[in-house]
Amino acid sequence: MSMKLICNQSDLNTHLSLVSRAVPSRPSHPILSNVLLCADASTQQVQLTGFDLSLGVQTSFAAQVREAGTLTLPAKLLGDIVSRLPDGELTLADEAGEEMVTLSCSSGRYQVRGMGPDEFPELPTVETGDVVYLPVDALIEGLRGSLFAASSDETKQVLTGVHITAEADGLEFAATDGHRLAVVQTPNPDAESQPASNVSFEVTVPGKALRELERMLQLNPSGDAIAVRFDQGQLVFEWSNQRLTSRLLEGQYPNYRQLIPRQFSRQMSLERRLFIGALERIAVLADQRNSIVKLSLDSDQQELVLSVEAQDVGNGREAIPAQISGENLDIAFNVRYLLEGLKVLDTSEVQIQCNTATSPSIVTPIGGLKMTYLVMPVQVRS
Amino acid sequence: MSMKLICNQSDLNTHLSLVSRAVPSRPSHPILSNVLLCADASTQQVQLTGFDLSLGVQTSFAAQVREAGTLTLPAKLLGDIVSRLPDGELTLADEAGEEMVTLSCSSGRYQVRGMGPDEFPELPTVETGDVVYLPVDALIEGLRGSLFAASSDETKQVLTGVHITAEADGLEFAATDGHRLAVVQTPNPDAESQPASNVSFEVTVPGKALRELERMLQLNPSGDAIAVRFDQGQLVFEWSNQRLTSRLLEGQYPNYRQLIPRQFSRQMSLERRLFIGALERIAVLADQRNSIVKLSLDSDQQELVLSVEAQDVGNGREAIPAQISGENLDIAFNVRYLLEGLKVLDTSEVQIQCNTATSPSIVTPIGGLKMTYLVMPVQVRS
Repeated sequence: MSMKLICNQSDLNTHLSLVSRAVPSRPSHPILSNVLLCADASTQQVQLTGFDLSLGVQTSFAAQVREAGTLTLPAKLLGDIVSRLPDGELTLADEAGEEMVTLSCSSGRYQVRGMGPDEFPELPTVETGDVVYLPVDALIEGLRGSLFAASSDETKQVLTGVHITAEADGLEFAATDGHRLAVVQTPNPDAESQPASNVSFEVTVPGKALRELERMLQLNPSGDAIAVRFDQGQLVFEWSNQRLTSRLLEGQYPNYRQLIPRQFSRQMSLERRLFIGALERIAVLADQRNSIVKLSLDSDQQELVLSVEAQDVGNGREAIPAQISGENLDIAFNVRYLLEGLKVLDTSEVQIQCNTATSPSIVTPIGGLKMTYLVMPVQVRS
Repeated sequence: MSMKLICNQSDLNTHLSLVSRAVPSRPSHPILSNVLLCADASTQQVQLTGFDLSLGVQTSFAAQVREAGTLTLPAKLLGDIVSRLPDGELTLADEAGEEMVTLSCSSGRYQVRGMGPDEFPELPTVETGDVVYLPVDALIEGLRGSLFAASSDETKQVLTGVHITAEADGLEFAATDGHRLAVVQTPNPDAESQPASNVSFEVTVPGKALRELERMLQLNPSGDAIAVRFDQGQLVFEWSNQRLTSRLLEGQYPNYRQLIPRQFSRQMSLERRLFIGALERIAVLADQRNSIVKLSLDSDQQELVLSVEAQDVGNGREAIPAQISGENLDIAFNVRYLLEGLKVLDTSEVQIQCNTATSPSIVTPIGGLKMTYLVMPVQVRS
């Protein structure tokens, strides 16, 4: 068996860096640190695959395939060389019976040791069930507004993922780490233009896979709708010449909707950037101790007072104008949770609703995305 | 004692970040993690000082000093808050007998715990001896062309510094880590315009202090000449409103001039960017093993062939055009040493001169800076 193809440096570089995100840095088996390369003579396409047994990325691009063939190559090494080559034509070829693959370009020639493709595990496919088409911009918005709130603690299982619910009228994305919860609803803007999107489903997808999906979609945000197929254990996103597969997280996702209060006794709206600026300064002192910021809603002055008391180090106090209704209230939060939520909202004003100093508050953008960010307050001794 | 001053956020921020570079992250004494602040009512100037007992940075800026005073403040904490404040007027004040210093601005008020100034060590001064004035651009050029070659191994003492020699006709900067040597000569462009620069001296200054000096000068490269004062143990650089002090490195600096061969049997000139590009690709494979690149000077083909053999991983070969005189030669180098030297040269072509595969080679820019970069080859079994 021998293979030979000619392609552009920039094509190979772009697609190698895409699939490399699914290549584990500490692979459980040596072959997984390689990318699978399939050169198809009939379609004149080269397909690359990276797979860490949970997340898989597959992508293809046009090339002159002189001899069809399949092989695997060390992802990082090949990527490091190709990314440093000048733009222009490259030739990739192997010799029958040899493990060395030769990369030739105008300036020189590199040989890297490949491995046969037989041991490379097959990317999961989902053949059964329906296809659901999701609009790209809704997916990007939903992921951006939820992913940050998922737990990064691998022992928390289902909480490390984002729970995605699809109904005929749109998508809902939810993520929580037990301290805060982010829920985004993206309406289906034009149900008729989305073929077969009347299928409803509920899945929990690992955060890592969705971060890659978000990254890949942002590289090409104006694309077509994304086809989604799934069965009990696997989910496959597919669009133009790319495919991302992920295992699903098992286990019951918390019934988060019941956590969101329906009524609030206090409500305030304020400028998001002012609020972020003040929180970031307060955080410098708060992070010296326990990261707690105290918010005092002052409806007489129509201002929100932020304060921090970092014993032995210092203290701080800022006031910003706010439209406040309801009685005055002192309530404390982890400053990081507030900041992370406020940063993904992208409206100029936000609304904060609360009841008491010990019950959940919610932050919502005024205008823009339909998003609910729920944060549990922190109890402080006064 | 109480102090009060009003200044601009941007002034305080700029000057705090300058002196903070001399504030140690793990101080041997708590007071050293603070900056010393002196507010002078007669000059209406605020002076900041950071000092790690080896490197000292002192700088001052204009402010409205209502009450003169001296105090110390936690450098990192204060810097983190001030850098996040919006531009505008700030007030810094302390109360007699209180350790808390209050920072007020339009949006709020912060208090940080200071410490009395008594324990803060005095910055070394050099009163005796002459003043030498060095042109700023010559200093920047000399530091840029030499600092990278100094040793980063603290046990190597004098080799962690740059040896600076001043004569009537200019400056010479030299740095070596034992494997390579960089020497830069900057002529005194107009001896008459440099007052008192007929003083000659030789000192070895710690790399860390010179990296800070380079950084500070680059922020304001069009400035006046730098005044240099020194005695046996200390060196003081002084310009406009800034001062940098450093201890000197003790011990005999190697007699590096005798290491530079005077005659060469081979000589080659080539395009610097092409050479760097090829070396960076070769380095990907070379770094998998021992970072060794083999250069083959081919005077028949008038090309330089770069090659790498990384057993079990792969191999590579590039050829670039070069004007070569002398017999063919195979010679091997640490690819990192070549790259580091080539990157600080800023001419489009460089010259490489060598004798044998075991004797030092030198790299020089063609045109531009007067710089000599000597690299020892690596012996390889063939």
